[in-house]
Amino acid sequence: MTTRLQGIGVCAGIAFGKVHIVDRRRLTAPHYHVAPELRAKEVERFERAVFASEEQLKEFRARALEAGMPQVELLLGAHGMILRDHAFYDACKDRILKEGQNAEWALKDTTRGLKAAFDRLEQDYFRERRSDVDIVGDRVLRNLVGVETELLDHLSEDAVVVAYDLSPADMVSLAKYSARGFVTESGGRTSHTAILARALGVPSVVSATRIMQLAGSGDEIILDGGTGELLLRPSASMASRYRGRARRLRLEQKALLADRLLPAETSDGVRIELLGNIEVSGEVESVLLYGGQGIGLYRTEFLPIESPGVAGAEAHHAAYQRVVDAVGDRPLTIRTLDLGADKNLPFASPTGDLVPSWTPERGHPSNPALGLRAIRLSLRDEPLFREQLEGILLASATKRVRLLLPFVTAVEELRRSREIIAELSRKLESEGRPHDPNLPVGVMIETPAAAWIADLLAKEADFFAIGTNDLVQYVLATDRGNEEVAYLYRPCHPALLRILDSVCRAAAVHGRPVSICGEMAGDPFHSPLLVGLGLRSLSMTARAIPLVKRMIRKLSLAECQDFAKTALGLATAGEVEQALAESLRRWAPDLFGAD
Amino acid sequence: MTTRLQGIGVCAGIAFGKVHIVDRRRLTAPHYHVAPELRAKEVERFERAVFASEEQLKEFRARALEAGMPQVELLLGAHGMILRDHAFYDACKDRILKEGQNAEWALKDTTRGLKAAFDRLEQDYFRERRSDVDIVGDRVLRNLVGVETELLDHLSEDAVVVAYDLSPADMVSLAKYSARGFVTESGGRTSHTAILARALGVPSVVSATRIMQLAGSGDEIILDGGTGELLLRPSASMASRYRGRARRLRLEQKALLADRLLPAETSDGVRIELLGNIEVSGEVESVLLYGGQGIGLYRTEFLPIESPGVAGAEAHHAAYQRVVDAVGDRPLTIRTLDLGADKNLPFASPTGDLVPSWTPERGHPSNPALGLRAIRLSLRDEPLFREQLEGILLASATKRVRLLLPFVTAVEELRRSREIIAELSRKLESEGRPHDPNLPVGVMIETPAAAWIADLLAKEADFFAIGTNDLVQYVLATDRGNEEVAYLYRPCHPALLRILDSVCRAAAVHGRPVSICGEMAGDPFHSPLLVGLGLRSLSMTARAIPLVKRMIRKLSLAECQDFAKTALGLATAGEVEQALAESLRRWAPDLFGAD
Repeated sequence: MTTRLQGIGVCAGIAFGKVHIVDRRRLTAPHYHVAPELRAKEVERFERAVFASEEQLKEFRARALEAGMPQVELLLGAHGMILRDHAFYDACKDRILKEGQNAEWALKDTTRGLKAAFDRLEQDYFRERRSDVDIVGDRVLRNLVGVETELLDHLSEDAVVVAYDLSPADMVSLAKYSARGFVTESGGRTSHTAILARALGVPSVVSATRIMQLAGSGDEIILDGGTGELLLRPSASMASRYRGRARRLRLEQKALLADRLLPAETSDGVRIELLGNIEVSGEVESVLLYGGQGIGLYRTEFLPIESPGVAGAEAHHAAYQRVVDAVGDRPLTIRTLDLGADKNLPFASPTGDLVPSWTPERGHPSNPALGLRAIRLSLRDEPLFREQLEGILLASATKRVRLLLPFVTAVEELRRSREIIAELSRKLESEGRPHDPNLPVGVMIETPAAAWIADLLAKEADFFAIGTNDLVQYVLATDRGNEEVAYLYRPCHPALLRILDSVCRAAAVHGRPVSICGEMAGDPFHSPLLVGLGLRSLSMTARAIPLVKRMIRKLSLAECQDFAKTALGLATAGEVEQALAESLRRWAPDLFGAD
Repeated sequence: MTTRLQGIGVCAGIAFGKVHIVDRRRLTAPHYHVAPELRAKEVERFERAVFASEEQLKEFRARALEAGMPQVELLLGAHGMILRDHAFYDACKDRILKEGQNAEWALKDTTRGLKAAFDRLEQDYFRERRSDVDIVGDRVLRNLVGVETELLDHLSEDAVVVAYDLSPADMVSLAKYSARGFVTESGGRTSHTAILARALGVPSVVSATRIMQLAGSGDEIILDGGTGELLLRPSASMASRYRGRARRLRLEQKALLADRLLPAETSDGVRIELLGNIEVSGEVESVLLYGGQGIGLYRTEFLPIESPGVAGAEAHHAAYQRVVDAVGDRPLTIRTLDLGADKNLPFASPTGDLVPSWTPERGHPSNPALGLRAIRLSLRDEPLFREQLEGILLASATKRVRLLLPFVTAVEELRRSREIIAELSRKLESEGRPHDPNLPVGVMIETPAAAWIADLLAKEADFFAIGTNDLVQYVLATDRGNEEVAYLYRPCHPALLRILDSVCRAAAVHGRPVSICGEMAGDPFHSPLLVGLGLRSLSMTARAIPLVKRMIRKLSLAECQDFAKTALGLATAGEVEQALAESLRRWAPDLFGAD
């Protein structure tokens, strides 16, 4: 009997194979009270287990580096931090010493408490971080009770790994033995599993409810990492249908990649710059592979994971230098930290403690998207901001680097940032350290306020990057994560078109380059509109580049401009979408023709 | 020893008096199991207590009406609903019948469960509604164990009531015996206590932490309901300072009220319309008393409390007709329900069940301000929306009523609403029921999207009302309730000035009247800017009217227009505020001169 399941696809591609179950069922640990005179000994037992766990993590980190997976190595480093974190390490020891709990019990209670603290936070990003606590707790527990962690060491060639959750250590093995794909019951789009799957390019589905109950080792499985579909024990006809689909996808992908050296140029000769968005240095390679001409948006929110426990300008510099080296003489735009809202990192606390910046006791703001985030947070914690800015300056010696400030709503934020940058530049100058004293400083246009004062910002900023994901959200007052209002989240809303038009004009008056990042830039459906409204630089996820390039090569600037003019006269998003769909059927029937 | 406390002032005015403690310490109730054969009897005992509570509530409602407090009567009605609500009444009986709990125990567990459900919701409005459940549970409990609820029946003339919390029934007594003020430990700006205090005009402070611990009956107390300050056992010099302050406030208030029949006219003869914002019909009187020329914003979110248990167009009509009658031949703008975000009413559910629209099981959106609210909610639950629209149509026969749609972000929302209104009007026509077939339909401009497409909306809407509270919040991506970003919430931000300018222009092109509501309209500091940018109608809380009028009478349109022109050229909110402060020192030295 075939079973069809729907999960969340996190890395596109179709995989065929046999289920390989990795069963991480929690060990049951003994719970008992320890007499006061024996507690010091119990603490020692706990410390030995932590030490053993540390040694294992070191070993995994080394293996990860060997396997060419620096991202995994970095995540494992974060786990090492948790082991020694006050909220974990000392809390366990306290429970043993003061409450007389045995080590296993103390461990369970501590991890449960930490996880609950994360759970009470509404942000997906946070909630998913709780799995780190689980993985670390599990490792220490296994060392306490003496059970070795299974290492996926015996993976057959056609294995699709199915698990409740996968640790970064598991990912090392995955890479080593080339699993065809993987499926987890837990996790979401921003879980470690998802991020690493994308970095590795392994077709993957997360959040596949009940898969561990329904799948048996050796079962045939087909997974579609694009749509999130899973087929367990598929019939022959289903399998052949999916094989056909996979073949088509591979061919299309190949054809697209074959074009990667062609210029992204309209039929009437206008060059459009296509850039990639990245989160970790390892992704530069894939941007270049897909034909990207540089990095339009390097998000630095993953830095604390990339360099756990290391702080200071030098650590920042080291991280950015890796990206600069990989990018070579192509352009690179580094965005300063955009934390807050849904993107808090528990590891980022300045004291090094494992505490979310919104502890449950303090409560968290009821509308984090309208709260302390990005440049607001940076300007409040200036010492940390200075470290990042100095790191970026130090990486700018090649003069290919630009610095981008996220979530600007007021001219003062730009002015204050520029003051700090100028100060740091003078300091570096006096120390004789090479950097770009004219480092271009740009602002994200992603709030309604920034859009309304684009002309004022253009006077003082060196360039703009329009962040459509947030911009659409704020302009339409519609949370993109909220299913109930998803019907209102429409990038073709007349307000957005007018904003893009007005921002491009304001930038042109002052001769400032504008790029656009966000999902709109990577969707070929929107390309004619963006080109017609005046955008000449689009930055997107690596895999979107080939299709957008193909689209652009089918367009003429004159037609796009005509279209944009018409679109600006329409009253609703629906009318704009319809007009766009009609034109695309004519301009690119192979991509947008009737099926 | 004097103790100084800081609470939240919810009704301005300074009160001097002696503390009268109302101690509502919870009764301890017996918990025991009831044998199966005795459970039917136990249920009867519970039903008798509910019946007795109902009778008492009826009695209080009658008393409230006598005391001229229709608002209190309405709140008591809401409590009556809870008594018979499925989630309360049946849940208690179930616990008795199935679990064998005694009535007191079943009651405690049920109220605890309901309160916990409310607590898990982050919205203040919701959290404060939990006190209703407490008050109702307390009443039933007192009827079960036979303890009469203390009724504040012996209040001395100089009493300032101090309590943990006050029920609407308590408010009846407060009005009857004219307490000088009241202070509660719990509550917030939108608690019943706060709303009723404002409606009654009794100086009040809520959220005064530890007051119940620090104050003793008979202590001297001074409370400032404007600033939220409390002085327990004040020294003679402090008391005399506050007496001086109180005298000044009274004189100023008197002087302002003396001007209430003067026109709100600039020195060069331009009339500005000053209107009041109201939430319940009882507030119309105070708007007129303070010199308001009509109602610019009637918020209907309190309707479910005004008319508990009653649904349908006729109930809506009855509520609106009360306001229409009170307003007479002055203008009245009724806004359709703006629920969602922080303003959900558990009583509003169509089934009559006491369930919040976001149950804890479903989770609630992490950014409610960007979710399903206002017109979005109305258009989703069309049958309920139709009832409200029909009620407004039925109240429009005098042709003084306008209908206002909140939180519009797209032209489609206006179009769909208009379709429904036209349909309902035809229906009423065919039934021969009097109404205004040309009922003016306007939209709130309170989202960035609406501001950007004001010209498109002006083509199809009859008028605009600019809601600055939300507009500032969304344009600046700054939650006004979030202390951490309070420094960014600045109505003088250049983006806001440009929006006001552009919306007024778009409206003028199509000959549509524009009014402005929100706190900006009621603050005389902003009057020159608003008049200069083209606004001729300001709607505000009743008590703000006299001061704004005085301000306007000191201004000349020419100066205001000059000022607005200058302000539109400035780059930051700080520069605008400074320029405004300088001009105001010249134009209104009595209000804005150096102290």
